Amino acid sequence: MADRKQVIIDTDCGIDDAQAVMMALAAPNIDVLALTCVFGNATVDHVCQNILMVLDVCQRQGETSVLLQIPVFRGSSGPLVGAIKPVSDHFGTDGLGDVIKDKDPRWEEKIQSEHAVNAMIRLVNENQKQISLVALGPLTNLALAVRLDPSFPQKLKDLFIMGGNMEGKGNVTLCAEFNFAMDPESAYIVLEEFLCTTYIATWEYACRNSLTWEFFEELINQDAPAAAFMKTITSKCWAYSKEAMKNKRDVYFGSGYVSYDAYAMAACIDPDVVLQSIECPVRVELQGALCRGMMVLDRTNQLKKSHSVTLFTKCDVRKFSRLLLQSLRQPKK
Amino acid sequence: MADRKQVIIDTDCGIDDAQAVMMALAAPNIDVLALTCVFGNATVDHVCQNILMVLDVCQRQGETSVLLQIPVFRGSSGPLVGAIKPVSDHFGTDGLGDVIKDKDPRWEEKIQSEHAVNAMIRLVNENQKQISLVALGPLTNLALAVRLDPSFPQKLKDLFIMGGNMEGKGNVTLCAEFNFAMDPESAYIVLEEFLCTTYIATWEYACRNSLTWEFFEELINQDAPAAAFMKTITSKCWAYSKEAMKNKRDVYFGSGYVSYDAYAMAACIDPDVVLQSIECPVRVELQGALCRGMMVLDRTNQLKKSHSVTLFTKCDVRKFSRLLLQSLRQPKK
Amino acid sequence: MADRKQVIIDTDCGIDDAQAVMMALAAPNIDVLALTCVFGNATVDHVCQNILMVLDVCQRQGETSVLLQIPVFRGSSGPLVGAIKPVSDHFGTDGLGDVIKDKDPRWEEKIQSEHAVNAMIRLVNENQKQISLVALGPLTNLALAVRLDPSFPQKLKDLFIMGGNMEGKGNVTLCAEFNFAMDPESAYIVLEEFLCTTYIATWEYACRNSLTWEFFEELINQDAPAAAFMKTITSKCWAYSKEAMKNKRDVYFGSGYVSYDAYAMAACIDPDVVLQSIECPVRVELQGALCRGMMVLDRTNQLKKSHSVTLFTKCDVRKFSRLLLQSLRQPKK
Amino acid sequence: MADRKQVIIDTDCGIDDAQAVMMALAAPNIDVLALTCVFGNATVDHVCQNILMVLDVCQRQGETSVLLQIPVFRGSSGPLVGAIKPVSDHFGTDGLGDVIKDKDPRWEEKIQSEHAVNAMIRLVNENQKQISLVALGPLTNLALAVRLDPSFPQKLKDLFIMGGNMEGKGNVTLCAEFNFAMDPESAYIVLEEFLCTTYIATWEYACRNSLTWEFFEELINQDAPAAAFMKTITSKCWAYSKEAMKNKRDVYFGSGYVSYDAYAMAACIDPDVVLQSIECPVRVELQGALCRGMMVLDRTNQLKKSHSVTLFTKCDVRKFSRLLLQSLRQPKK
Repeated sequence: MADRKQVIIDTDCGIDDAQAVMMALAAPNIDVLALTCVFGNATVDHVCQNILMVLDVCQRQGETSVLLQIPVFRGSSGPLVGAIKPVSDHFGTDGLGDVIKDKDPRWEEKIQSEHAVNAMIRLVNENQKQISLVALGPLTNLALAVRLDPSFPQKLKDLFIMGGNMEGKGNVTLCAEFNFAMDPESAYIVLEEFLCTTYIATWEYACRNSLTWEFFEELINQDAPAAAFMKTITSKCWAYSKEAMKNKRDVYFGSGYVSYDAYAMAACIDPDVVLQSIECPVRVELQGALCRGMMVLDRTNQLKKSHSVTLFTKCDVRKFSRLLLQSLRQPKK
Repeated sequence: MADRKQVIIDTDCGIDDAQAVMMALAAPNIDVLALTCVFGNATVDHVCQNILMVLDVCQRQGETSVLLQIPVFRGSSGPLVGAIKPVSDHFGTDGLGDVIKDKDPRWEEKIQSEHAVNAMIRLVNENQKQISLVALGPLTNLALAVRLDPSFPQKLKDLFIMGGNMEGKGNVTLCAEFNFAMDPESAYIVLEEFLCTTYIATWEYACRNSLTWEFFEELINQDAPAAAFMKTITSKCWAYSKEAMKNKRDVYFGSGYVSYDAYAMAACIDPDVVLQSIECPVRVELQGALCRGMMVLDRTNQLKKSHSVTLFTKCDVRKFSRLLLQSLRQPKK
Repeated sequence: MADRKQVIIDTDCGIDDAQAVMMALAAPNIDVLALTCVFGNATVDHVCQNILMVLDVCQRQGETSVLLQIPVFRGSSGPLVGAIKPVSDHFGTDGLGDVIKDKDPRWEEKIQSEHAVNAMIRLVNENQKQISLVALGPLTNLALAVRLDPSFPQKLKDLFIMGGNMEGKGNVTLCAEFNFAMDPESAYIVLEEFLCTTYIATWEYACRNSLTWEFFEELINQDAPAAAFMKTITSKCWAYSKEAMKNKRDVYFGSGYVSYDAYAMAACIDPDVVLQSIECPVRVELQGALCRGMMVLDRTNQLKKSHSVTLFTKCDVRKFSRLLLQSLRQPKK
Repeated sequence: MADRKQVIIDTDCGIDDAQAVMMALAAPNIDVLALTCVFGNATVDHVCQNILMVLDVCQRQGETSVLLQIPVFRGSSGPLVGAIKPVSDHFGTDGLGDVIKDKDPRWEEKIQSEHAVNAMIRLVNENQKQISLVALGPLTNLALAVRLDPSFPQKLKDLFIMGGNMEGKGNVTLCAEFNFAMDPESAYIVLEEFLCTTYIATWEYACRNSLTWEFFEELINQDAPAAAFMKTITSKCWAYSKEAMKNKRDVYFGSGYVSYDAYAMAACIDPDVVLQSIECPVRVELQGALCRGMMVLDRTNQLKKSHSVTLFTKCDVRKFSRLLLQSLRQPKK
């Protein structure tokens, strides 16, 4: 029980967020205190609905479980500054592949009335130095949290971010990764002001540690509701992932199955999943016609920052695969 | 009673904010629902203390008055994005001329525990379309309010801003006015997303409608506690205002006494104080080595914005003077 | 003869440049050493043709005159950095109102083979401290001249620029004047590196010292070939000047006839045309979504520049009108 | 003789430029038509002197050779826009290690009076489609050449550039390589407007194909005047290269001897030195607090550019070493 972890997951619940959240729900050592929603892969309303569906799937067969009690909070509907950038998202309009028809018409009743940012602040104040915050979407909620409570970061246990890039190669714009590109100012604020222990699973980390498409088939064809759900929501965009995305990813990293957000979640669940990492200060470029939103590594300390983050570089792919497989054999015993 | 106004004043309480707040407290038709504090002329903690002192002065001689019940909320301690820019402030380190020695050691107890931004949102939701928001400092609290509640602006009655400029001449940087320069992103957000009726008293409006230094002496030498307080807090920076500030202001507008924030407050109290104004869309420049924070007027509709603001250009100086004189004859009968 | 002036005119010959050049050609105290062409109101090829037509008109009735010998040089066809910005030009596609049909098919033979920039450098080296450079278009040729010969500016007698603005109001973009907006980098370079005596006739100077439309009619209806030519080339865009341009100019300055470039030329011909001016350092904003190309005045010396320029503010409209009238009574006796 | 190459070398002659120029002088298939100088590793005056020394060394023992006749031209003394950025250069103040004492007092007489940019334009016009331009410094001269003669690029045979980076890691600023960082605008212009066949040896290409320090000792200890010269000029900065530079280079690429400019020159001399390369459009970021001057690869064609460049990725280190060794066994037979 010593290594039992309290976690808040901030998510823009697309397909890979769903996968990551399922991984947390399946992990015996993880207590998910709250799921906070943010725009990103879809509108924040879609994200709320998606998260409720994921929770529903993961406790479907069990009796009234603890899962039911994980509160879901609605957060930011757009970036900190400026309008939402339209992205042709690979996860469909609803973020979960546009395949689910019968959606819960009363979903809003299941969302807490407290704003995600206020909920984050409250929970972290109630559990100081206890909570790992896992951020899987644009970092808007986190930026707002430090604005409303400047001491918020120091009251976290640690922070896991899926986002940013290490080699100046973007997946949305030429030089910026999706989550950072969607809200560069918030990414900047978090990397400047969250002086807690911070781990980052970048786009390159995910892409350079991809899994095979054979593994993907094994993963989603497991005999369990969660696997069936994942099979359903990936049914349409599978083609995309395997074909269309090639343009962007394969040219740099070669092909393979990449479940982005799961890489950050896995590192939170089991640190041994990460075999190698770099420690250095980072900063986000806010200006620029080409580079806005790009994360820059300062390995020679030009910026004279006192705070460094940990950037994962090498993953124990076997351990990671096992966590993925388990996550779709929900529900948790 | 038909024209009785409910007002929230968001302030970075320096000397001119104190003057503006006193004007509101003295106005028979104004109910101040809340005073929300923001960094700017001083740290947000100094601002909180300053506001408490102003409230104390304005009800000093009366019995337990309604003034006692105006709640004060602490808000943002820095700009939305980036670090606070150090400014050599003309109002001293504490924002009130650095002359008051015996400060209340228990001031923090008198500040509400609710964050200014949450208080704003709550009050505006409780009094929809009833509240005039008067913003006298950097617009950080307002920007955060629309982030936490996107419908916040449309639930306001109207918005009065002291800030920005109309002719590309700044008082802090070369091209930007103090309140906008201190937090350009928030100014940008407010001018893009607050689609309510918006009135702006710019730096040029204040400077071009300055009062004489003779009037200033008459103003602070009135026989009343509020006047005495104003005389005290301006005692040191009077020299500054008359001499040192010349460099920046006189070169453009000539000399004279300019009580910035009072111009916005006066327009809220009595619309007839404004004799002339321009209506057009505006936008804040966020980039630029020289122009960051500058407010740009779009009088020929190049930006295709649907929303226009009202920019004051000509003030009824006689009416304005009378409001100033009354404001220092506190307390309100 | 003591005040006889040697002048090089750098021009993007549109209608108002034509007017300004005619003013120089008509001035008894001005020797035009060269006409150097630059893109701007039209392509540099159109500009070359336009200048040849102007020269032709101004010596039409005389015998082989000295005018024939003024060499015309082709210069820059686009801005220093980046692509040409398309502008819906008020002077038509050819820069002279799109009304002249019978153009000289052999015009290229009349253009010198030497590049305008090299010609400028050569002439200024041959006549050090003797030449007034009058720049009526984008400042690309001047920027290139200082790049190829860093001592070029100090070998000028003085520099007259038509361009830039003083109040953050643009006529092309929201905040930038045409000549500066067309090549902000060159404007920046010239204002940073041309440390010679520099006079600037800004957009506001021209607009605030406009003439009446009655005067315009008197001007073009004079009985002389130059007047007839001006009447022809303004025949189509007159409507524009009087009507369509209202949107941009009238909203700020009121209506009236404004012959931009002539204001700079007149100041070179007769300094007494300028009644009032400001001396201060200036700088051009190179970045910014709204302010790129805007000229910023540094009246309080924030930039710590050692070099100031002279910005005209008030014109002797009577003297200026007389110069205009004379200019269309070509040829010079 | 079929593959005999006419070359103009544009250089900011530091130590590695000297090495690259010697390689060209030693190559039997290369005719160096001109050496054009540009600021960079040192002032343009130092660069001129350095190039003369290199030429002198390479023909020292021979009789009046053809080398004597290679003309040297002075070019740009600073970047296209803005002031020179001070860099703490690893090649000393004079660019050649600050070790040579007895400099030629009459060096200026040996520099051609024609400006480098005009010389480039003239030579390329006289030898259309014949000349390979090898650019080893900031690209200012090239940018000016296309400004004065827009058809300059299409009259080149091809262009070899040492500069830029591929992975967002800089050696001067956080994200930009030295030659591009010294004049981002010129780098931008060249990569946008030089639509000729273009080869780029980036910083990463050089660093990832470094040689051993043992090889370096073998190289400079050869018994020949050129080797002795190289030994002399590297005597002081050797320590630097092996120790101090570690901070910047080793953290990314590991240690080793990297003769930057020689990589571009070698590819011009013998295409087989390059084993692997990428073809894609590139663009230089001009804005940004961190990324200004960074070269961005557009491998998925987001920018819709029609022109691609060839970026070297893998070098035949054996062939490259042989060219280096030969280059210091000057003079050419």
